[in-house]
Amino acid sequence: MRIVLDAMGGDHAPGVVIDGAAQAVRELEVEIVLVGREAEVRRELAHHDTTGLGLSVVHADEVIEMDEHVDAVKRKKDASIRVGMRMLREGQGDAFVSAGNSGAVMASAIFDVRRIRGIKRPALAVLYPAALTPVLLIDNGANTDPTPENLVQFAQMGAGYVERLWGIDNPRVAIVSNGEEPDKGNRLVRETFPLLQDSGLNFVGNAEGKDVTKGIADVVVTDGFTGNVMIKLSEGLASFFARLLKRELLGGTLNKVALALMVPGLILTLPGFVLMIPALRRIAKRMDYAEYGGAPLLGVDGVVVIAHGRSNAKAIKNAVRMARDSVNLGLVDVIKQSVRGRT
Amino acid sequence: MRIVLDAMGGDHAPGVVIDGAAQAVRELEVEIVLVGREAEVRRELAHHDTTGLGLSVVHADEVIEMDEHVDAVKRKKDASIRVGMRMLREGQGDAFVSAGNSGAVMASAIFDVRRIRGIKRPALAVLYPAALTPVLLIDNGANTDPTPENLVQFAQMGAGYVERLWGIDNPRVAIVSNGEEPDKGNRLVRETFPLLQDSGLNFVGNAEGKDVTKGIADVVVTDGFTGNVMIKLSEGLASFFARLLKRELLGGTLNKVALALMVPGLILTLPGFVLMIPALRRIAKRMDYAEYGGAPLLGVDGVVVIAHGRSNAKAIKNAVRMARDSVNLGLVDVIKQSVRGRT
Repeated sequence: MRIVLDAMGGDHAPGVVIDGAAQAVRELEVEIVLVGREAEVRRELAHHDTTGLGLSVVHADEVIEMDEHVDAVKRKKDASIRVGMRMLREGQGDAFVSAGNSGAVMASAIFDVRRIRGIKRPALAVLYPAALTPVLLIDNGANTDPTPENLVQFAQMGAGYVERLWGIDNPRVAIVSNGEEPDKGNRLVRETFPLLQDSGLNFVGNAEGKDVTKGIADVVVTDGFTGNVMIKLSEGLASFFARLLKRELLGGTLNKVALALMVPGLILTLPGFVLMIPALRRIAKRMDYAEYGGAPLLGVDGVVVIAHGRSNAKAIKNAVRMARDSVNLGLVDVIKQSVRGRT
Repeated sequence: MRIVLDAMGGDHAPGVVIDGAAQAVRELEVEIVLVGREAEVRRELAHHDTTGLGLSVVHADEVIEMDEHVDAVKRKKDASIRVGMRMLREGQGDAFVSAGNSGAVMASAIFDVRRIRGIKRPALAVLYPAALTPVLLIDNGANTDPTPENLVQFAQMGAGYVERLWGIDNPRVAIVSNGEEPDKGNRLVRETFPLLQDSGLNFVGNAEGKDVTKGIADVVVTDGFTGNVMIKLSEGLASFFARLLKRELLGGTLNKVALALMVPGLILTLPGFVLMIPALRRIAKRMDYAEYGGAPLLGVDGVVVIAHGRSNAKAIKNAVRMARDSVNLGLVDVIKQSVRGRT
């Protein structure tokens, strides 16, 4: 399998992208094509022993910067994102991965790879990490102002994906809202609610913020603005709680006294904290986006994975893994069927 | 000071409301007027020794149910919410507190107490509990589809409130968005951004979900839909993390083996968990809405506090405390000045 990787995408590109690519070809049994400014890419590659590894470079003259307006996609025909997307379109790769400007990746995917017939807007699907059972949250930022019809398609795509990915028949679908009752919600949610009821999906109604963490649904649909705020708030809360806990454990009055006097009180406290460390580490790992690597863009006619802009090498490697797994899953066919089967 | 309390509001009314009222009159040096169906209220009051306490009852024939449509406000002129609001309007009380249907409380506040001149929409302000420094989040559910102009007023009211409440000059104001860059956001946020820049407020730009927990601003503005999702997601995450931590500490493989064999390994584990308990309790307390009790409805011409529908007696008591403190703060004048001073 050959994964096309945007060498210029992300806050720490091309360095960490190439580090991640080197890890990925070693561990994941994939071939990787790095797309970007060849001289820069080769300079970074020189830090790795790449002999015998399935790593190649395709030159792309331009770069769409992280904070650049999405219009740049039209103008910069030779940007790494666009060159990579065209390679995917032309079958020179099985998937495309980028940690670059996510608006630009989405625009280029629509323009160069095209949407699946019948899909109005692609959407980003992420595994929501802080729930008692697996929850797929869709959309996570691709569409800040979707229509009710868009949201119904997101639900269909999400349900089809989860059915195949987790082997759940007829997965439960909920929509994020500000109350449980059917008449709660902003205008968008209230208009979408009856459409979801008539969609043939296993629609279980509104999910409040707290319900999402309880796993009341397998697929949770929302607009990309709210979805993005939810994911990033959860990231923020995970580190907030970890800090609070450390402060409580290490900074409590008792411990301060124990530390000041170096008395045996310390002996009581330290095992508590030492035992906490692996627990905190497992929780942090669960919440760490680098473990997930990226989110597949559902609804385009090829496997496109968008990684976090702040990706480190591990996140890049895991985004490549997600691309590989999505190809193996037959993602594009799954999405085609999810919409065809329901409409 | 005399606080008017909706005896029929909340999932556990009138029982817990009256329990909370009895606690409040004992602890808070306020007089309380309970508004609701007199027979029911007096039956609950009989469980308490109220002699010498400043507790009285005003009869209200109707009740607006928790899941009832907001239209009921027009129809039910004698609902406890409406009777209480008219008492506030007529100076028979200094503040009104309800854990009832929040849409109905807001509609009745606008109808019976009236908005402050110049204010288009009142908004709910809550202290966001999971941040390193105090953060006022506004709006928390009163307006699911506000306009950009509404959001600017929310920011002005929030800034004025925080200035007086926390003694912060020129507080930092941010707007919740899906990215830091000024062009990020849904349509509403992108349209509000330049208005906030020109508002004379100390506007620091977009706040992503994770930024809110870091305390990058004193006042964080958002629409009531997103605000409500954020607050309830944070509640859900707090209990999710607590469960995860307990499971990690008590349910790890090591501990299971220790428990099964009753070996001294247990001795290593138990102190860890025992030391955790007060830390977890302090964190839970910090996240518990019952500690805050309620949210003041900013922008109406009287002190109105909306408590959580799931309020227990302690939450009711703390909502009364918030009402008392808001009266002492001169809340209505503060809000009048915040808008007058800026427009």
